[in-house]
Amino acid sequence: MSFESFFNPKSVAIVGASRQKGKVGYEILSNMISAGYKGKIYPVNSQTNEIEGLKCYPNLESIGSAPDLVILVIPAKVVPEIMHQCAKIGTKSVVIITAGFKEVGKEGKALEEKVVQIAREAGIRIIGPNCLGLIVPSNKVNASFGGDLPAAGGVAYLSQSGALLAAILDIANANFIGFSKLISIGNKADVDELDLIKALSKDKETKVIAGYLENITDGDAFVRQAEQISNIKPILLIKSGGTSAGAKAASSHTGSLAGSETAYESAFERSGIIRCESIKQQFDYAQAFANQPLPAGTRVAVITNAGGPGIMAADAVERTGLTFAKLDEGTVKKLGAVLPPAANLYNPIDVLGDALAERYSFALTTVLDDPNVDAVLILLTPQAMTEAKATAEAIVKISHEKPQKPIFTCFLGASKVAEGVRILREGKIPQYDSTGGAVTTIMVMTEYKRWKSKPKRIVKLFPVNRRRVENIVERHIRHGIREVGETEAKEILEAYGFVTPKGSIATTADQASNIAEQLGFPVVLKIWSPDILHKSDVGGVKVGLKSEQEVKDAFDLMMYRIPKKKPDADILGVLVQEMCSRGKEVILGMNRDPHFGPLMMFGMGGIMVEVLKDVSFHLAPLTANEARQMLLDTKTYKILKGVRGQEGVDIDKIAEGLQRLSQLVTEFPQILEMDINPYVVGPVGSTPIAVDARMSLEV
Amino acid sequence: MSFESFFNPKSVAIVGASRQKGKVGYEILSNMISAGYKGKIYPVNSQTNEIEGLKCYPNLESIGSAPDLVILVIPAKVVPEIMHQCAKIGTKSVVIITAGFKEVGKEGKALEEKVVQIAREAGIRIIGPNCLGLIVPSNKVNASFGGDLPAAGGVAYLSQSGALLAAILDIANANFIGFSKLISIGNKADVDELDLIKALSKDKETKVIAGYLENITDGDAFVRQAEQISNIKPILLIKSGGTSAGAKAASSHTGSLAGSETAYESAFERSGIIRCESIKQQFDYAQAFANQPLPAGTRVAVITNAGGPGIMAADAVERTGLTFAKLDEGTVKKLGAVLPPAANLYNPIDVLGDALAERYSFALTTVLDDPNVDAVLILLTPQAMTEAKATAEAIVKISHEKPQKPIFTCFLGASKVAEGVRILREGKIPQYDSTGGAVTTIMVMTEYKRWKSKPKRIVKLFPVNRRRVENIVERHIRHGIREVGETEAKEILEAYGFVTPKGSIATTADQASNIAEQLGFPVVLKIWSPDILHKSDVGGVKVGLKSEQEVKDAFDLMMYRIPKKKPDADILGVLVQEMCSRGKEVILGMNRDPHFGPLMMFGMGGIMVEVLKDVSFHLAPLTANEARQMLLDTKTYKILKGVRGQEGVDIDKIAEGLQRLSQLVTEFPQILEMDINPYVVGPVGSTPIAVDARMSLEV
Repeated sequence: MSFESFFNPKSVAIVGASRQKGKVGYEILSNMISAGYKGKIYPVNSQTNEIEGLKCYPNLESIGSAPDLVILVIPAKVVPEIMHQCAKIGTKSVVIITAGFKEVGKEGKALEEKVVQIAREAGIRIIGPNCLGLIVPSNKVNASFGGDLPAAGGVAYLSQSGALLAAILDIANANFIGFSKLISIGNKADVDELDLIKALSKDKETKVIAGYLENITDGDAFVRQAEQISNIKPILLIKSGGTSAGAKAASSHTGSLAGSETAYESAFERSGIIRCESIKQQFDYAQAFANQPLPAGTRVAVITNAGGPGIMAADAVERTGLTFAKLDEGTVKKLGAVLPPAANLYNPIDVLGDALAERYSFALTTVLDDPNVDAVLILLTPQAMTEAKATAEAIVKISHEKPQKPIFTCFLGASKVAEGVRILREGKIPQYDSTGGAVTTIMVMTEYKRWKSKPKRIVKLFPVNRRRVENIVERHIRHGIREVGETEAKEILEAYGFVTPKGSIATTADQASNIAEQLGFPVVLKIWSPDILHKSDVGGVKVGLKSEQEVKDAFDLMMYRIPKKKPDADILGVLVQEMCSRGKEVILGMNRDPHFGPLMMFGMGGIMVEVLKDVSFHLAPLTANEARQMLLDTKTYKILKGVRGQEGVDIDKIAEGLQRLSQLVTEFPQILEMDINPYVVGPVGSTPIAVDARMSLEV
Repeated sequence: MSFESFFNPKSVAIVGASRQKGKVGYEILSNMISAGYKGKIYPVNSQTNEIEGLKCYPNLESIGSAPDLVILVIPAKVVPEIMHQCAKIGTKSVVIITAGFKEVGKEGKALEEKVVQIAREAGIRIIGPNCLGLIVPSNKVNASFGGDLPAAGGVAYLSQSGALLAAILDIANANFIGFSKLISIGNKADVDELDLIKALSKDKETKVIAGYLENITDGDAFVRQAEQISNIKPILLIKSGGTSAGAKAASSHTGSLAGSETAYESAFERSGIIRCESIKQQFDYAQAFANQPLPAGTRVAVITNAGGPGIMAADAVERTGLTFAKLDEGTVKKLGAVLPPAANLYNPIDVLGDALAERYSFALTTVLDDPNVDAVLILLTPQAMTEAKATAEAIVKISHEKPQKPIFTCFLGASKVAEGVRILREGKIPQYDSTGGAVTTIMVMTEYKRWKSKPKRIVKLFPVNRRRVENIVERHIRHGIREVGETEAKEILEAYGFVTPKGSIATTADQASNIAEQLGFPVVLKIWSPDILHKSDVGGVKVGLKSEQEVKDAFDLMMYRIPKKKPDADILGVLVQEMCSRGKEVILGMNRDPHFGPLMMFGMGGIMVEVLKDVSFHLAPLTANEARQMLLDTKTYKILKGVRGQEGVDIDKIAEGLQRLSQLVTEFPQILEMDINPYVVGPVGSTPIAVDARMSLEV
């Protein structure tokens, strides 16, 4: 859809406009007028003829034409009626400021659904309800009660919290940060974050899309679309409600269920979204993304008039994984020829406490020319001779002359640097109040650049026996059986190209020893009961049995001991299995997130996964690169690769296992959860074995 | 020593005072005058008779009496001469502003040493050289060129970077933060951070000691003293130069070697010092510590007029490990009786967007009375009806009426909350620009409280055979042998109560199998060579040998293969050792830090320690609690305790091993480095075995 009539309306009607100061219906009208809106404003209020010098209409129909945009500031219960009027006159874009819908409970929810239904039938799009409104500085639209019209600029902001938007406006105005659009999305009854992000991706004024979200309406669609949009424009999001306390607060607030934190993280990672911790951090990032080029690489040069902050910046550069640029010899020579003898010519370049603007200019110009430098950070502390203002002016000038590399500043102080900071901000130089803030921003920009340059995602499809899985899954669902037993889970895995260990169930000790003999020693014994999920917890797993006698002893001990520990368990026998002795145990798993779908997991198997929690996650479907990245994301990766004389295992085979599992759970959305644990992997060239598996279905 | 004449001088001489604006000699004099200093000021300058209306003296002697404090702003090379004059007239306290000493190289270092020698002989104390000066707001002393005199307050600040102090002054002035003392410590030629921290701990005006340091002069003394001082007043430090890039920048800056990051972290932890990442964070903390009581516990209540920030605060509370307070039923009832129906009565308490000051007041008073609440965080966003100023006034008033629990605020915004923020700051309510900043501060306060309430440190001394160790250590040092061989390292360990495995060296395969038979199977074979430190890397360790034949085979294979891999290694034979099969392998270690002395290490043994880097550190000497804490600080602790049916090991025995090792390295400072790896620990009641050990001495 086009958001043209939201973003650039030729006429705006305000239904519920009021004469009374302090009332929202007055504030919105007054904000529209004082913003200098050039289009036509129609206040609608049957109680009065005129507000603030504008003719007042008793109802929408009396206007005589359809306004491009209608703002509703009326009691919730009359909203449906006015929506019908909008439909009648032919308005297609409505902002509902009014609260009292989904966020207040069941009745409000029903009312909201009714309103949406009217809109859908009439082809009307709604922003809100329960929102602060809409602001478009370039078109002088301030259809909000958030505050004064901010400056125009490259940052678009959408917020699920109206009150936060008010604070953001205030902070942005004070910091000379300009916006393309500000949208309070409220309950997202119709237009949601994804609609807007899509619209903003095509909006010429918008260079950066920023937002505050408490939940995402359609996780799956969001990930797919955001991935494409991130390639065009950076998306900076605050996602709150991630912790259980936060989520509890969030659901009491917006009546929506927050997705699990891990799934959100994976979704953001996949789609290149840059997650921010606070409004402050978001604007730290936004001002840089909106106004500076991305650094070509990770090499940072620092120019400073004080040693201390230079050291702090160097610390931050190293901690964030950036590189402290090693200046070219030519650069060092050039600097040495002009800077005073006490100056430090190596990175961080110390231009000394008495540096005037000219010395800063010279150093900056010289360093920008250095082929070994990708980004420059300029630090300034207000000392006796420091020219904060002139230095800022010089930096802005140089940034225009040499726009290829990004420049960042950290003028430390308050009143003594205020004028300089203003000039920097207005001159589109990102300015920070701490060295850490500046360096983190550079790091985030380089990460975004790396994300953008990733090869296109290609998900390999393996030839599989889908039919066989369908049969098993459908049978379970038909019978309402949630847990798939080990034997059938393995059948499913085999159909998707996994190899599982040979073995059979024994009900007597003699039978067990016969099976073992056929398999060949050593073997593993596992208790066989639908009621025992964690077999080793009850002593139900015995590995490395090397003779008939050992098998018999183990069988009898299990049969004697386990019923005592689990008197209610239905014990069907003992599984005698071939032993996969060579290799390492890993775990491949999947958990289906209600918002984002199947979330794949990888980790070292056995006790390690539970104790060390050294696991990695990624949304399915996985590409080969993503599967390999999941391995790299664990600390145990080194163990898999082989350390200190120990042979490594077949890494690619594990990655392939993850891809096959990803294909299985993508093709079968009925699978809610599953684990292959352990997945035993041997040296390169060997075949991994899916030793044990758990699977549950949505029934 | 007393710093009385530094902090409260009755008279101040400025040697090098100047008539020329912009010169440091002028700035300092002018700052002293405009600060309103009540004592006598003596400008000393032989070129003029009067500066800024004050009589000028040609030299110190001509003053006719000894000024309490002398400030030197003269060229470095004449400083020794003036120091002699100070000695002659009897001044005991000198601040040397002048640069050009240790920081410029060898000659400067010699000059600095000369100056210190003159001072020591005359009983003079020096702050500096190469510093910005000294400020004491309450006594109207501004003997600095850093800026205007700030407000008086409870924060003392000492900075190893003069330029940073200038920025801090500017920031503090803009944020209404008051100081007791500000000291630029420069090169620390005489007075160092510890002297000042000790003095400030007794200073009645100082409630919080804050500082920026690039290194610590005497690590050992610092830890011992800071530990006691932290019990009286919180110490908040920025320590920069922690990373290698930072340390490189630091050494080019102050000519001092930075200590290792881990040692600093351990030292700060032991001594209760609160480490800060940035100036901003430091003042976030300082304003709270200086003005609010410590929270009695971790339960935080949040009051907000907007949902979004409430959720962000809830997220932050959970993430930092604090508790989201569960309000008492009585509180919920009281709130419900007064707040509007749409308000959220549970934590976070949402007083709604139209909340006036009165509603905030009521909620705050009610929540402060709740026995389930230890700290209150008030969030405010500037909405249409919000009374930021009146709300701030109400909060300040209530904080005086109910001073038992700490109150924190986060007024989000800029110009619309500026007046409120000013009132909060002046009213000693810590105010933050992000929910995260506020919550982190509460967390740091609770951690400090927990640190303070720790039991007194008692280091247990085990009865040991010190004499035996002395013999071995002295013999090695006499012969200049750095590495102590395995046999002698084990002798040392045995003298300190460790049990080591039995075994002997074999030079032939037959000899090896004979030794193995005597020890009893299974045995371990280890290559025996002073040139091979990592035995397993070259295939020099073979475990679990169960027969004479296996021993002979392993012996011959080592003798055949290892010389090929290490042709230069002097192979003395093979150690045949009893096998410690039962238990887990851990590593106990020590590395002597040049600043802070022996740093103990604990971790899971074998490959795990290298791959997972799951190790913990603590400075020696260790108490029993600290040794246990070292175990708890690793993720592998759970494995040691026993998981999923696996038996745990004797935790107390590991802790005892750490304490014994700590005693050994404390009593023998000649030991530079050592590892017991593996230290094999069995179930409770068993005796751990120090299987292998490495030790190097300072020769």
